[in-house]
Amino acid sequence: MKSDHPIHLTEVSRAFSTYTTLVILKMMMMSFITAFFRGLRGAFENPEDIADTRREEKFRQMRSHPDVERMRRCHQNDLENIIPFVLIGLMYCMTAPHLQSAEIHFRIFMVARICHTVAYVCALPQPSRVLTWLVGVLVTFSMAYRVLKRTFHL
Amino acid sequence: MKSDHPIHLTEVSRAFSTYTTLVILKMMMMSFITAFFRGLRGAFENPEDIADTRREEKFRQMRSHPDVERMRRCHQNDLENIIPFVLIGLMYCMTAPHLQSAEIHFRIFMVARICHTVAYVCALPQPSRVLTWLVGVLVTFSMAYRVLKRTFHL
Amino acid sequence: MKSDHPIHLTEVSRAFSTYTTLVILKMMMMSFITAFFRGLRGAFENPEDIADTRREEKFRQMRSHPDVERMRRCHQNDLENIIPFVLIGLMYCMTAPHLQSAEIHFRIFMVARICHTVAYVCALPQPSRVLTWLVGVLVTFSMAYRVLKRTFHL
Repeated sequence: MKSDHPIHLTEVSRAFSTYTTLVILKMMMMSFITAFFRGLRGAFENPEDIADTRREEKFRQMRSHPDVERMRRCHQNDLENIIPFVLIGLMYCMTAPHLQSAEIHFRIFMVARICHTVAYVCALPQPSRVLTWLVGVLVTFSMAYRVLKRTFHL
Repeated sequence: MKSDHPIHLTEVSRAFSTYTTLVILKMMMMSFITAFFRGLRGAFENPEDIADTRREEKFRQMRSHPDVERMRRCHQNDLENIIPFVLIGLMYCMTAPHLQSAEIHFRIFMVARICHTVAYVCALPQPSRVLTWLVGVLVTFSMAYRVLKRTFHL
Repeated sequence: MKSDHPIHLTEVSRAFSTYTTLVILKMMMMSFITAFFRGLRGAFENPEDIADTRREEKFRQMRSHPDVERMRRCHQNDLENIIPFVLIGLMYCMTAPHLQSAEIHFRIFMVARICHTVAYVCALPQPSRVLTWLVGVLVTFSMAYRVLKRTFHL
């Protein structure tokens, strides 16, 4: 078991791995939610995905539905925000931040993105969604600031 | 040549780099395939991309085409699945897995994603596409499980 | 301050962190530009985002606008090109390239992507956009070539 263990994994890297993996899994869950709503609403993009073989039924289900589009947009927003967080977070870990400081960044980001998904999926009244989105962006900006301050080399 | 060589690159990192680079290049190929179909079908999104300068011809080619949209969706699916694989894979490598175990993960993922692209681009009958997609997702979940088990720090 | 500093951060990693962070921040800026144009053009995707509470006004603003769609496409192009650059660049850094060689890659990529955004947002006549896009792709291919040459392990 010892030999199997990583050698130079700091506590910050461990926290980063845990939070990042959880937040990426959350992002991947959007695929399942979208697929569920596609089936529920009978709204497909690919003709081969429609089980019903009657031609007019295929034609009828080749459509978009507001619920499906909402899940797509939520997934897209995750791609546009979670991936930058993970990539900048990776470099942030290399700047050897204090563990508590790193934990605060990761925790706020994870909670903000979960709240963002709830606000998006349930179409909660604004500014709930825009605020949760902004918190995530500001966490990423804060990590980016430290990375630039510590590693600046143009 | 020696001095140029990386120092602490394990065999797992080498395998990861190779498979990841290949699978990202595959993803980038989708841009070229989409551009090819845009030209072939005369379906553009930007007016400045249409070579024909006649106004009515520009208007006619500012449209969508099912083949182009299919390539776009395949590219989007790559973004939604290959990037999580690479990011979680990076942390998976830091948990020092056995080389054979890592190779199995990387190989299955690469083969699954290539088959997924073929199934999507050629519109093969289901469940070919959904199964190849699921195999890729399960490989990523398996790596995420190990990362969480080894590094858990909330 | 010393204890806070990263230990084995090479000059190449520092350059990579700086350029990558800047280019990811540029990508994240697209969200703000899109939001700005949504407000300016009165074109929204979510009913809850429309401040006006009159029903017919909500219906009227639930639409797409060419300017908003252009910003979306520019953002999407960033996702499709900047993320592969960062991921392959990460592995490129692990192959211990010469600092000058790495700097040339990173600089050309950053300049190309900034020019690409200007060409896209301002709808400059082609081939400005396609050339700047191609330069970015070729930089990523060049790094991928080195990664595959140095780490090949299938």
